[in-house]
Amino acid sequence: MRKIAILGIGQTKVDEHWDKSLREVGGEAAFLAMRDAGMENVDALYVGNMLSPTISGQNQLGAFLGDWIGLWKQESVKVEAACGSGAAAFRSALMAVASGDVESALVVGVEKMTDKAGRDVTAALAAAADADYEAEQGVSFVGINALVMRRYMHEFGWRHEDFAPFSINAHDNAMHNPYARLHEKITAEKFERSAMVAAPINLMDASPVGDGAAAVVIVPAERVRRKPRIVVAASAAATDTIAVHSRKDPLFLQAAYLSSKQAYEMAGITPKDVDIFELHDAFSIMAALSLEASGFAERGQGARLGLDGEITPKGRLPVCTRGGLKARGHPVGATGMYQIVEVTQQLRGECGETQVDGAKTGMTQNIGGSGASILTHLLQKED
Amino acid sequence: MRKIAILGIGQTKVDEHWDKSLREVGGEAAFLAMRDAGMENVDALYVGNMLSPTISGQNQLGAFLGDWIGLWKQESVKVEAACGSGAAAFRSALMAVASGDVESALVVGVEKMTDKAGRDVTAALAAAADADYEAEQGVSFVGINALVMRRYMHEFGWRHEDFAPFSINAHDNAMHNPYARLHEKITAEKFERSAMVAAPINLMDASPVGDGAAAVVIVPAERVRRKPRIVVAASAAATDTIAVHSRKDPLFLQAAYLSSKQAYEMAGITPKDVDIFELHDAFSIMAALSLEASGFAERGQGARLGLDGEITPKGRLPVCTRGGLKARGHPVGATGMYQIVEVTQQLRGECGETQVDGAKTGMTQNIGGSGASILTHLLQKED
Repeated sequence: MRKIAILGIGQTKVDEHWDKSLREVGGEAAFLAMRDAGMENVDALYVGNMLSPTISGQNQLGAFLGDWIGLWKQESVKVEAACGSGAAAFRSALMAVASGDVESALVVGVEKMTDKAGRDVTAALAAAADADYEAEQGVSFVGINALVMRRYMHEFGWRHEDFAPFSINAHDNAMHNPYARLHEKITAEKFERSAMVAAPINLMDASPVGDGAAAVVIVPAERVRRKPRIVVAASAAATDTIAVHSRKDPLFLQAAYLSSKQAYEMAGITPKDVDIFELHDAFSIMAALSLEASGFAERGQGARLGLDGEITPKGRLPVCTRGGLKARGHPVGATGMYQIVEVTQQLRGECGETQVDGAKTGMTQNIGGSGASILTHLLQKED
Repeated sequence: MRKIAILGIGQTKVDEHWDKSLREVGGEAAFLAMRDAGMENVDALYVGNMLSPTISGQNQLGAFLGDWIGLWKQESVKVEAACGSGAAAFRSALMAVASGDVESALVVGVEKMTDKAGRDVTAALAAAADADYEAEQGVSFVGINALVMRRYMHEFGWRHEDFAPFSINAHDNAMHNPYARLHEKITAEKFERSAMVAAPINLMDASPVGDGAAAVVIVPAERVRRKPRIVVAASAAATDTIAVHSRKDPLFLQAAYLSSKQAYEMAGITPKDVDIFELHDAFSIMAALSLEASGFAERGQGARLGLDGEITPKGRLPVCTRGGLKARGHPVGATGMYQIVEVTQQLRGECGETQVDGAKTGMTQNIGGSGASILTHLLQKED
């Protein structure tokens, strides 16, 4: 595939933006990315979003956002893969530029979730699961993840408190990210004592929803003179059954395994070469499963990396260096694009207190549903 | 761009499929396309759909449908551009294969609209318009089109009955298409006397919604030995403002003009070389505007082609040869894929009574919203 570079990035704070509409939140990230890229125009717009039809009564987010930001003629489209929508839009844009039919693209992940009551949001999120065989039976999205976490703890002998390091690291890192939703350090004690959501998942295992947008401008790498140049070393996607109960092994993220394996091959690297991993910690259990399926830990041993202190910015494999879904926040269809923006910031060396020294290769992994759609991207710094 | 061929096609009847779920309707078209292509597997799945989150409580239609049809590992994604979702999914798949990252793709347009009450469907369709500045003010989607039609009639001096030939032709042609929703010939008298929906649009100006799915399998052209080989000669997309009132000229489909112009250039042809045009007659007014913007009629003279008998299968520019949106039916996110399937049938010479003799070049034009997202494709027959 044609080599592609990330020329500009932009993001809004993840928050309850009650004073801003869907178009304003998306537009803010888009304008920042265009300005950062030094471009006034692009050939195409790709929007990642999951909930605008149900929460905002708005479809056709490509034309909708293009209209707002002044792309009145250019092609645009919305790409959706539940909570994996952001990375899915990024991958569609990559293939468009790689095909040669498009020379530059703006990719925006945007979500507006706090304009409706919590119960409406919970119902809208349930559409990421199987409507007929999961949601219709009354199990919420967090409920599905709780069943997986309970089984994992039983199967591999972990206690709930063993997952604390994932959330503590995320909250620690978010302290230094002005775009993060939560700026509050947490302790192991707070992790254990938080209110229960769906046992064994409590508030500190679960990521907060929010309004937010993150965007990038991509172009063929040969057009980029700026140093360091941030290039896409690999893009891969895979799927699994939509319902967890259909899987032979509900504790193994097949789509993470397949997409990360393909990404490593494409980039010609191994997991050891990954300097940062922005993983999809929608729930702490997903952090553990993602680490295992992507080759960073043995089966059932994902939690070990947290306990051994390897996931902090000074550790062997820093994860969630800007706060992750847990503390930066999880505006679902935007999350995958926040991950791409954050790894780009790391490779550019713009992360201050949580900068990972000498980072050259960063990985993102964006998960749709309870593991049904998973996209893995590798970004690299070229000096 | 790498040359791509359509190897297999499949479709369901557009109908009220109350006995079939969303996955069954989509699966049926998918299986038919795979069988027609003689393939048991593909690298990727692209799904065009607009309403599943609001009507069926189901997101992530890529993984959802992939699961049902046995693509348990392959990447998949949903692409959405309101009623232009079908062609948008097709174009995303084309670029994926053109990029070289994917060697074969299944594209399915699917919609399930009749499981909810009519008022819920009307509300869900309003999300194709601008939620803040059109829908929120109480104007329905047909209402917006009615305003456009009224203005057009005023501006260019047409009477309502002058639009009758579009609907009569569509109904005539649908008589010979077993997949069409309506099998009922209509007369000019019936056209004029039908129940009013939103003046001046009556039931005979408006396309019926429905449940349905249409699918194709695409591969690089060099892999296809079958004769005739149906190839994609051009793919182009463009946009306009999402709200009609923001346009300098609400009677001109800028995105149809831009995307058709680009498609002609890409294929190296002129409108005169087009043998069949499957246009987006969601309302009779859109048929007229589409013909004008795509270079087949002067401004304000689109209705003339119908009156002069040029749009029938024996005419100079046959349109809606399988019934169009008006009589084949308009399962919104699937419509663009029905158009691709139908032009393929024409180029293969499989259309019986409505076969266009010697058809070598066919065009499809799929419209999202009231002209905000428009995709134009040119297919050609290679003997």
